[in-house]
Amino acid sequence: MSGAVASLALVERALAGDTAAMARLMSRAEAAAPECRAAMARIYAKAGRAHVIGITGVPGSGKSSLVAILTQKLRASGKRVGIIAVDPSSPYSGGSIMGDRIRMSELAMDAGVFIRSMATRGAQGGIARSSLEAVDILDAAGFEVVIVETVGVGQAEVEIARAAHSVVVVSAPGLGDDIQAIKAGILEIADIHVVSKCDRSDANRTVADLKSMLILGMGSLDSGSWQTPVVPTSAVRGEGFETLIACLERHAAHLRTTDAARERVRRIAEFRMLKTAEDLLRQRFIAARDPAVAKVAEQLAAREISPYQAAEQLLDGLAFQGQA
Amino acid sequence: MSGAVASLALVERALAGDTAAMARLMSRAEAAAPECRAAMARIYAKAGRAHVIGITGVPGSGKSSLVAILTQKLRASGKRVGIIAVDPSSPYSGGSIMGDRIRMSELAMDAGVFIRSMATRGAQGGIARSSLEAVDILDAAGFEVVIVETVGVGQAEVEIARAAHSVVVVSAPGLGDDIQAIKAGILEIADIHVVSKCDRSDANRTVADLKSMLILGMGSLDSGSWQTPVVPTSAVRGEGFETLIACLERHAAHLRTTDAARERVRRIAEFRMLKTAEDLLRQRFIAARDPAVAKVAEQLAAREISPYQAAEQLLDGLAFQGQA
Repeated sequence: MSGAVASLALVERALAGDTAAMARLMSRAEAAAPECRAAMARIYAKAGRAHVIGITGVPGSGKSSLVAILTQKLRASGKRVGIIAVDPSSPYSGGSIMGDRIRMSELAMDAGVFIRSMATRGAQGGIARSSLEAVDILDAAGFEVVIVETVGVGQAEVEIARAAHSVVVVSAPGLGDDIQAIKAGILEIADIHVVSKCDRSDANRTVADLKSMLILGMGSLDSGSWQTPVVPTSAVRGEGFETLIACLERHAAHLRTTDAARERVRRIAEFRMLKTAEDLLRQRFIAARDPAVAKVAEQLAAREISPYQAAEQLLDGLAFQGQA
Repeated sequence: MSGAVASLALVERALAGDTAAMARLMSRAEAAAPECRAAMARIYAKAGRAHVIGITGVPGSGKSSLVAILTQKLRASGKRVGIIAVDPSSPYSGGSIMGDRIRMSELAMDAGVFIRSMATRGAQGGIARSSLEAVDILDAAGFEVVIVETVGVGQAEVEIARAAHSVVVVSAPGLGDDIQAIKAGILEIADIHVVSKCDRSDANRTVADLKSMLILGMGSLDSGSWQTPVVPTSAVRGEGFETLIACLERHAAHLRTTDAARERVRRIAEFRMLKTAEDLLRQRFIAARDPAVAKVAEQLAAREISPYQAAEQLLDGLAFQGQA
């Protein structure tokens, strides 16, 4: 059985809800296996029903605890929840576990929850394409909600969180100055702000700061008529999650009932087109053990040609080679 | 005067050491102005002499203080130092200032120091290409050392730090678990480890942990025969910087005297070729107010075609349009 046929067989099993098949498809997507492109095309055609929620925040903002409890609450209302973690500090990916260990293993035992950590280490690139393909797999397999958790530092990571229907930015009180400065850069992508750790006395200040920012009309990239809410939560006390879920449902309804959904879906499609093209380019570059490509790189290293000339040659030369 | 001619005039002024011209060229590179490609090609041809030092570390690791003091010490030995900060928490880019305010403004007054913050906010992309072009500008203008400081979180940011001749990874004692987990992902790219804040009593443990890791043979991506040193520093006490400079010089000599330099320069050239090609692709995508491209994006949004088909059409269709 060829790789392509085997991948298509995995698709049928994944669509039928086989979690092992889903995991294997995700691994193939991460490995950028060319023979699984037909499979991913079939998955993509079947996807498009899930509510995709991007959750991002700086390290230490309490994203993972939030995701764990949000997932529990969504499960209690009968929804199947997929989680894609693009976050080296996430407890799913071997990072710190903190107070979440029990919750995470409880969730992992639940057949209505699928958790996947995407590798972000090394310089492989392609994290946007493979993460969005993992979202598709969960979506096509019938998960009603897919949560994409990314660390809110790094251009690629922030872009991935933005490629969701509803973007939640998590802030926490009492972080260091370095972290606060980074936080400022991601506030504007929020459809919903969460202030976590609201059992702390200094959380009110964080809530007030965010509300002031919103009143001043700052911090909304493409909200349209949507009023960005600020939701205080406490993972320790389990507070605020009903409000968060209500806000998420209200945002989904807002997208459905206004032009916002169309615009959002178009923007996500453009992002995917570009990220997939970048990834194809990289794959062709790696696959092209072409002496011509190596020669161009050497000429560039020797500064005989410019990066633009080298890039033009890469784009023009490799485009003709077609699909691998 | 056309944009291209004006940019070439800026190049001549930048090569002659005019810092205003250098800054304007960097802005044009950041804006990805097509008319400055010839200028950047000329800059690239003139560059290649500077020692490019990548400095990265998680938020709170003390990168910026390290860069400030390292720059002072290098200045004391007569070297001109350029600093490219790809770090939203860097004090140069409007982030927190902490104890560095005076040092930074002192440095900014020194004609032998050029500091540039690259914007990492928003979803513009292209930060790798524009950062490396800024390095070229400083290099071509005769700065003997160019420091590229990036936050050690995020795929793009870590890749940029790796595209240097000598990569310094800064660790600090006493960071939170979330941060420690992220740190683990960047240790392997180090040519030199720095443990900052060594005035703290728990710094010895951080030094010992890094040394154990190195003895176990972990944590070196492409060191070859290079023995990765671990250098304790204290910005408060001004300690460890002579050792760090000695290690940097030893690493530069190692690159010169072994095959490592050739391999490193080749790897950097390949990275640049790919990143520039990605950026050209993005620029063409944005520039192509082509109904055909918009139609492909709409078909993708409607899930009538797959991301791979859309990407293939983007790569194949746009490649023929040639240089903008």
